[in-house]
Amino acid sequence: MDKKITMAHGSGGKSSAELMKQIFGKYFHNEILDRLEDAAVLDLKGGRFAYSTDSFVVNPIEFKGGNIGKLSVCGTVNDLLMMGAEPLYLSSGFILEEGLDTAVLDRIAKALSEEAEKAGVQVVTGDTKVIEGRGGLMINTSGIGYILPERDVRAANCRPGDAILLSGTLGDHHACILSARMGIENSIVSDCGVLKEITDALFGAEIPVHTMRDVTRGGLGTVLNELAESADVGIRIKETSLPVNPEVRGFCDILGLDPLYMGNEGKMVAVVPGERAEEALALMRGTEMGKNAAVIGFCTSDSRGVILETPLGGTRVVDMLYGEGLPRIC
Amino acid sequence: MDKKITMAHGSGGKSSAELMKQIFGKYFHNEILDRLEDAAVLDLKGGRFAYSTDSFVVNPIEFKGGNIGKLSVCGTVNDLLMMGAEPLYLSSGFILEEGLDTAVLDRIAKALSEEAEKAGVQVVTGDTKVIEGRGGLMINTSGIGYILPERDVRAANCRPGDAILLSGTLGDHHACILSARMGIENSIVSDCGVLKEITDALFGAEIPVHTMRDVTRGGLGTVLNELAESADVGIRIKETSLPVNPEVRGFCDILGLDPLYMGNEGKMVAVVPGERAEEALALMRGTEMGKNAAVIGFCTSDSRGVILETPLGGTRVVDMLYGEGLPRIC
Repeated sequence: MDKKITMAHGSGGKSSAELMKQIFGKYFHNEILDRLEDAAVLDLKGGRFAYSTDSFVVNPIEFKGGNIGKLSVCGTVNDLLMMGAEPLYLSSGFILEEGLDTAVLDRIAKALSEEAEKAGVQVVTGDTKVIEGRGGLMINTSGIGYILPERDVRAANCRPGDAILLSGTLGDHHACILSARMGIENSIVSDCGVLKEITDALFGAEIPVHTMRDVTRGGLGTVLNELAESADVGIRIKETSLPVNPEVRGFCDILGLDPLYMGNEGKMVAVVPGERAEEALALMRGTEMGKNAAVIGFCTSDSRGVILETPLGGTRVVDMLYGEGLPRIC
Repeated sequence: MDKKITMAHGSGGKSSAELMKQIFGKYFHNEILDRLEDAAVLDLKGGRFAYSTDSFVVNPIEFKGGNIGKLSVCGTVNDLLMMGAEPLYLSSGFILEEGLDTAVLDRIAKALSEEAEKAGVQVVTGDTKVIEGRGGLMINTSGIGYILPERDVRAANCRPGDAILLSGTLGDHHACILSARMGIENSIVSDCGVLKEITDALFGAEIPVHTMRDVTRGGLGTVLNELAESADVGIRIKETSLPVNPEVRGFCDILGLDPLYMGNEGKMVAVVPGERAEEALALMRGTEMGKNAAVIGFCTSDSRGVILETPLGGTRVVDMLYGEGLPRIC
C-alpha cells in the first residue's frame, strides 16, 4: 500500500480499487456492502423512517477523545436518535486530500467502523474522492433509522410546563478542538459520542419525551432558540444549573468564551413533561454519557424567547449565536 | 445577503440561518424538509430500497451542460436507477469554501432543485459547512429509491449470450471538463443528465434487464471489467461499435486520450438477454438521453476478462483504468 494518498486513488480505476481493498475492505464488512453494487439494497418493513445527513470538516482530524471517523458516526446517529429513531444504516463519503497518510486514514476508517458497531448501525454504501490539498480529510455520512409507531418527538411538541434536561457538561468538544489548534496543553477531552444509551433509557422507561435535540455547533443557546421558535413557547433556564467541567470553565474564562454557544458532539437536551423530570433525570444520570445531566429549565407560555436567570437573580435574553462560531469544529 | 461566503455562514448560528433562508429556502420546499428537524421523517411502505451516496468535487463547478448542483443529482439518482429503483428522496450536504460568490451558490442550488424535480425526487434533508479555500464548493448527496418486487438488476446477473448496450457517446463529460480546465474553446457539452427516461422505457416494455451500470469515472473499460468480475463472465466488445462524438474523437486524438477510460455523467450500459437486444436498443434510441445508443458487444463464457475487437480484426485485452484518471471530474 502506498504511504500517501495521491490523486490516482480518486480515479475510479485500479488505485481506487486497491485503496478500497486495503483500507476500507479491512473494516467495513456486511452482507449488503459486500455486494459492491452502485447502491445498497435494504429490506425495510413499512413505517416511518428518519433520514439525515451531515458533512464533517473538523480540524484537526484526530483529537483527544476521537477523530473525524468516530465523529462522522456520532453526528449522524445522534441526529436520527433525536427523532426518536432506532439508527439502522449509514452511508459514508470520504473526501481525501492528496498527501494524506494512509496510516491516518486507516485509523480513521477503523474508528468509524468501531463506532458504527457500537451504535448498532451498518455502513452499507460509500464513496471516496481525492482532491488537492494538504493531507486532510472530510467525511459525509447520511443515515436511516426506524421510528417506532408510538413515538412522536418533534421540536414543535414542547409545551409550557415541560422540563428541559441537558445530558451533561457544555463545551468539552469545542474546548478540546480549540486547545489542539492553539497548541494549549490541558486534559480537556472531546465529548464526541453516541447518545443511544440515553435515548434507550428514556424510551425504555416510557418517558413521554416531547422533543430532543443534540447540542452541536451553535451551542445550547442556538438550540434553545430553535426549539422556542418551532414550538412557539418561551424558555427559561438557570445559569447556575448549567453543568460545565471546571477545566473547561477555566479555559472559557481565560479566552472569553461562553459555554452557552460552544459546540458539543455528545450532548443533548430532552424536553419532557414537568412531572416526569426527576425520573428522566435519574435515568439519564444512570448512563455513562448522561452522568452529569441536569434539569436546566422549563418551557413557559410567554413569548420572549429564551431567558437566562443569572446567579444574582437578574435575567438576560439568550439569543442565537451570531457571527462566527469556531470554524471547522465538526 | 452577503456577496461572498464567510466562515460565519458555517457557524450554525444566525448567519447560517440567514443563508438557509435566502438561498436554500428559495429553492428547496416540501412538506418533509420544511419541518426543519434534525432528520427528515419518511413514510415508507415495506420492501426493498436502494440507498447510495456520492460526493461531487468537480472542477470547474460550472461547465457547459451543467454545474455541480445538477451533477450531484444526476450522479446519485443514476446510481439508484441502475439498481432498478424508482428514486424517491435525496439528502444534500454542501461544503462551501470561504469566498464563494453567493450568486454562484444560488445558481447551483437552483440547478440542483430543478434537476431533482425533473428526476422526480425530493430533497428532504441537508447540511452546510464552510471551510477555508478559494471560493469553491463540494456537494455530497445520498439517495433512497424503491425497488419494485419483480426487479432483479445486479452485476452478478450477466449471463453468457447477453447483449451489452451502451446508451450513447463516450467521453463527453470528461472532454468538456478538461477543455474548460485547459482553456480550450470548442463546442463539447457535458452529457451530465438523469437516465430515468431510459430505464423507464426498458422496464415499461418489460425488457428483463439483467444488469445496469452508469459509466462514470474509470470509464467504460473499468465498468466492463467490474461486471465481468462480478458475474464471472467474459465480455467481448467491438471498437467500431463504440459511439463517440466526432468532436470528442478529435479532442482525444490530439491529447492521446482513450474514450474507453473517459468519464461520463449521463451514460449507462444495460445487459439484456441477446434475443431482446434489438428491441431494447430501439427503446433506448427512442429517448433523448439514449438517442445515440448502440449494441457494443456480448457476454461470453470464457474467462479472459474484457476483450476488444479492433477495426482491423485483431483483439486486445481491455484492463481497468490504471493510475490517474482526470482528477475532480465528478
